[in-house]
Amino acid sequence: MARVSQAHLDARRRQILDAAALCFARNGFHATSMQDVLKEADLSAGAVYRYFRGKDELIAAIVSEVLDEVRAAFEAAAGQSPPPSPDVLVAAVLGRTLALRESLTLDDGVPAFPRLVVQVWSEIPRNDELGAVLREGYGQVRAAWGRIVEAYQDAGAMRRDVPPDHVARTMIAAVLGFIAQQSLFGPAPVDVLRDGLRGLMSMAGGVPGS
Amino acid sequence: MARVSQAHLDARRRQILDAAALCFARNGFHATSMQDVLKEADLSAGAVYRYFRGKDELIAAIVSEVLDEVRAAFEAAAGQSPPPSPDVLVAAVLGRTLALRESLTLDDGVPAFPRLVVQVWSEIPRNDELGAVLREGYGQVRAAWGRIVEAYQDAGAMRRDVPPDHVARTMIAAVLGFIAQQSLFGPAPVDVLRDGLRGLMSMAGGVPGS
Repeated sequence: MARVSQAHLDARRRQILDAAALCFARNGFHATSMQDVLKEADLSAGAVYRYFRGKDELIAAIVSEVLDEVRAAFEAAAGQSPPPSPDVLVAAVLGRTLALRESLTLDDGVPAFPRLVVQVWSEIPRNDELGAVLREGYGQVRAAWGRIVEAYQDAGAMRRDVPPDHVARTMIAAVLGFIAQQSLFGPAPVDVLRDGLRGLMSMAGGVPGS
Repeated sequence: MARVSQAHLDARRRQILDAAALCFARNGFHATSMQDVLKEADLSAGAVYRYFRGKDELIAAIVSEVLDEVRAAFEAAAGQSPPPSPDVLVAAVLGRTLALRESLTLDDGVPAFPRLVVQVWSEIPRNDELGAVLREGYGQVRAAWGRIVEAYQDAGAMRRDVPPDHVARTMIAAVLGFIAQQSLFGPAPVDVLRDGLRGLMSMAGGVPGS
């Protein structure tokens, strides 16, 4: 039997995950069959089932990979003293997440990743296992953001009378909603979100007379 | 033939739209049949088809109703001088949108509206007509938010070197992402988002040393 290098195994696994991501982004999880994934990956059933037993394992692997990346980025930021400001941090992490996947496009050239994210969200109520994966990743990112917000408050950069967890959830909401906009209305540079946060951050004086 | 009051016709229409919203939130648009909607509304086919010719008309009516409400709220805010600050405005509009629909719950008591929103998003790539409805409503809300942001800048409440449209898209992103979080992880009071925006708005000085 031929020896197969780890690099080859990794590349094959990547090929399968990317094919599955494209199929799920294009047609949703329910309407995608393993046959569709095999065809998209241009691999035999034997070659694919060696890595993944079915659609549930594929979607869980895709979601875990993204969550691990994002969690690591925010935990690294939480470890910096002081952490980067929210506009800079969000643009860096989201920019990298999107850039790593920009070669994954649908047939009409539309980026697959934002579409995939929304398809995953729509699947959650029907898929407890995937829901658990997402909930755990969300909890970790939210906790890391909470520590970052506490550091802002400790540095005197943010008012102290707002719960750090509420700011954490708001920051995550802005990123999730920005991805949803891309899925619905087409790609937009992360500078849009960075500028928007920067504008909001400048409103310390409130709106005079409001 | 019996005379039927407008109030009766309106109530019947409401009954059908609410039943369809529950079905779509529960199982998604694709997996819902008109039969499911009839059963949920406890009405005959004749009673329902008098109002709506099919699923596409139902989902378009549901989405249009929400968009009209939200658009009107932001256009009213854009007409105020000065407009309410972002934290107050978002909490008021989103709070009202959610409150109007809080009696719509799924079988396990989960609010249906956030689930419905994510199911609509996942349907957009396959449904051009619904996509057009959503794009138009989004364009109008974005334009109204743009005018609100210009008013902040004119009042000296926000730095002027960020494009108003970028702030508009960021504000909409925060709301969409907050709704997505509710769909994925359960209900949360709008105070969470209000506090989070309030925290961000206090960061005018940036993060010292970052």
